[in-house]
Amino acid sequence: MQGIQDTIAAIATAPGVGAIGVIRLSGAAAITIADTIFKGKKLANQQSHTLHFGHIIAPNEKGEETIVDEVVISIFRNPKSYTGEDVVEISGHGSPLVLNSILNTALQAGARLALPGEFTQRAFFNGKIDLTQAEAVADLIAANSTAAQQTALKQLRGGFSEDLKQLREKLIHFTAMVELELDFSEEDVEFADRSALQQLVAQLKEKVTALLQSFRLGNVIKNGVSVAIIGKPNAGKSTLLNALLNEERAIVSDIAGTTRDTIEEILNINGVLFRLIDTAGIREHSMDAIENQGIERSKQNAAKAHIILLLTDAVEANDDDSFHWLEPYREKIIRVRNKVDLLQTSETDPSTQTLSISAKEKTGIETLKQLMYQHAIGNHLQTENTIITNARHQEALQHTLQSLLDIEQAMSQQVSGELLALDIRRCLYFLGSITGNIELDRDILGAIFSQFCIGK
Amino acid sequence: MQGIQDTIAAIATAPGVGAIGVIRLSGAAAITIADTIFKGKKLANQQSHTLHFGHIIAPNEKGEETIVDEVVISIFRNPKSYTGEDVVEISGHGSPLVLNSILNTALQAGARLALPGEFTQRAFFNGKIDLTQAEAVADLIAANSTAAQQTALKQLRGGFSEDLKQLREKLIHFTAMVELELDFSEEDVEFADRSALQQLVAQLKEKVTALLQSFRLGNVIKNGVSVAIIGKPNAGKSTLLNALLNEERAIVSDIAGTTRDTIEEILNINGVLFRLIDTAGIREHSMDAIENQGIERSKQNAAKAHIILLLTDAVEANDDDSFHWLEPYREKIIRVRNKVDLLQTSETDPSTQTLSISAKEKTGIETLKQLMYQHAIGNHLQTENTIITNARHQEALQHTLQSLLDIEQAMSQQVSGELLALDIRRCLYFLGSITGNIELDRDILGAIFSQFCIGK
Repeated sequence: MQGIQDTIAAIATAPGVGAIGVIRLSGAAAITIADTIFKGKKLANQQSHTLHFGHIIAPNEKGEETIVDEVVISIFRNPKSYTGEDVVEISGHGSPLVLNSILNTALQAGARLALPGEFTQRAFFNGKIDLTQAEAVADLIAANSTAAQQTALKQLRGGFSEDLKQLREKLIHFTAMVELELDFSEEDVEFADRSALQQLVAQLKEKVTALLQSFRLGNVIKNGVSVAIIGKPNAGKSTLLNALLNEERAIVSDIAGTTRDTIEEILNINGVLFRLIDTAGIREHSMDAIENQGIERSKQNAAKAHIILLLTDAVEANDDDSFHWLEPYREKIIRVRNKVDLLQTSETDPSTQTLSISAKEKTGIETLKQLMYQHAIGNHLQTENTIITNARHQEALQHTLQSLLDIEQAMSQQVSGELLALDIRRCLYFLGSITGNIELDRDILGAIFSQFCIGK
Repeated sequence: MQGIQDTIAAIATAPGVGAIGVIRLSGAAAITIADTIFKGKKLANQQSHTLHFGHIIAPNEKGEETIVDEVVISIFRNPKSYTGEDVVEISGHGSPLVLNSILNTALQAGARLALPGEFTQRAFFNGKIDLTQAEAVADLIAANSTAAQQTALKQLRGGFSEDLKQLREKLIHFTAMVELELDFSEEDVEFADRSALQQLVAQLKEKVTALLQSFRLGNVIKNGVSVAIIGKPNAGKSTLLNALLNEERAIVSDIAGTTRDTIEEILNINGVLFRLIDTAGIREHSMDAIENQGIERSKQNAAKAHIILLLTDAVEANDDDSFHWLEPYREKIIRVRNKVDLLQTSETDPSTQTLSISAKEKTGIETLKQLMYQHAIGNHLQTENTIITNARHQEALQHTLQSLLDIEQAMSQQVSGELLALDIRRCLYFLGSITGNIELDRDILGAIFSQFCIGK
């Protein structure tokens, strides 16, 4: 890792024009460097968590002192800062030119431009946060739904890693015991209580399995629930699509930075994003397409989707044969019977498990949404269960589970303490790699932190 | 103006994703509202200019308390704040979703969404800054060159309005005297020393004229110097263009938020932007175009440009007749003789006032740049002279100058004190409208502050 002793600097706010923008410095020399470029109170004499108005100054080409900007400086003294080092934040006028001038002034005074994620990386190295918390920071910044935001915040507060840490510490105790046995191998003693170990392994297996199961949900929260609307051309797919989208569009477009393209096919139900797959396709193509060459495409969409909305026409005779190819995905299907407003009588049949709606009259739309939410999320978000969202965690948990199975097998086969210790060590490694409790490969850390934006 | 008693809130940093983002609150209830949504220390008990770590909390749909973000709060107590009111800045994770959640939480707790420029408007109403300083804030944020940045900073620090204020106060003294005479009109006394008034008016005229003259330069600093490159097709226009641009491109593109389109035709010389007019045209069109239908376009460019680079070929026979139509613009022309690298001997003739260069070999390019800078800016930026950049100021100054001439005429015609007082009052009005020392029309203020971004 590049110069961990360096004092690093970067623009921490989003690029572009705003009212204000913030440049962040972190490192042993942060306050000294800030004092060099700041005209106001002497920052070295100021307490932590205080704010100071003044000017950033820099020499011009002729060496004369010129004012770069009017700023407010925040001082956070080590260890009470984001990185655990001395941190100075310079809040200046939000023009890219002005912010770049301030940053350049700081760099000329001895700071180094921060790498992506380097502030958070330092927070990790200084024990302010563990690896899952660092990853939660990136997830939180990238969050595009309140569910994703909430999951990231939970992870940021350490809920996820705390359980694992406790179980891991117990396991460490057993390794120590097993390894102690090796020192006394000629005496055939057993310091590590095998049945207690078995119990711990079972406990860990349960926890790890639950976490692995939560990943499907976590992934859905992070990337959205994909929904395919399937139905005959006259079933009212586009009307349903519009009915689903209309109320949401304004709310979503409220959020600056999300693009129009994406918005138009995204639904937000109770804070979870639902993505309507290939909506454009559904909008353009008629049933002809499905019956002809387009059927392949619909099959692909159905296969990819978390949910299939199978739309039928309440007025037409039911002719579900056209959709027999959906049979493999029956668990994902929500049956929706449209155009009930055209029916003479209200012939709702609760036994069919088919929801009756009128997309045109917008009746039943809210119920459909809640059904979609229930189908994808259920009650999982309301419980205090931890949900993992990160593919790296999933992989490490899979390895952990495998090594737990190896330990169980090793114990049932009564292998030597030496081999058992090896299996436990491997399990500890994978568990530790999740929270960063072990010495991780620099490449792994690099891969994690390079996904951050600069300034974080 | 909308609810000046309200506590206002807005996202103050640029839209989009960054490491951090800032929500700003200002008003009498800023700290109370922040306390409602903040879980950490009680902010009402904290001193001004302090920072506090904690969580923003909000009730979810079920009324349960949920965490919106981990934040750091800055407190600025009235009057030591940007607006002169109590100000709270909430620094959260830089995702549009998270920042919007925090903002919405603040709005639900009683804040109102700020209008564009409303924070700065409050700073103006509370006497923290005058109108030219408020305008300087907008200019500083929009600054796209160091020269524009420096001019805005000078104006922000009040250099511009201080002189005017002093002269205006002296003039106010004279109005009072002249108006006092009116009370004693039957006694024919003269409290206002006419020769001293004449002197003051002359002084003001000089100052106002100098400021008006600076506007041409100010405009150039704010919007860039326009440059037209004119020459025969084989004179090497595109080579010169590339030679001029090449070194700069990297530096300019360094600044996030500037678009590629603009960059490619912009030169930065000593911190001042030079815009190459219709470069695409120059690149595409051959001399044929100039000699045929294209001549009109070249004429238009030449008329619009601050500088015309007239490029000739050092090897070819001089045939300046093609450019006799440039005669009206001779003062704007810099003559450049290209391809001197192809000459057998160095036949530079210093008397011709023509710069010899080789665009291909990149010799003389730096000299040409400094010549362009000298031509457009001269030494004006190095002196401490005030430069006005704002069209509103120019207009007010023109009115001021006219009313000063009216005062002079009134005095020379020895009009009644009553009429003289009227002329002086009119002059005071225009002078005061620049800095906002008078009661300005709400529409005028609205027009000024609506140009700001939200959050400033």
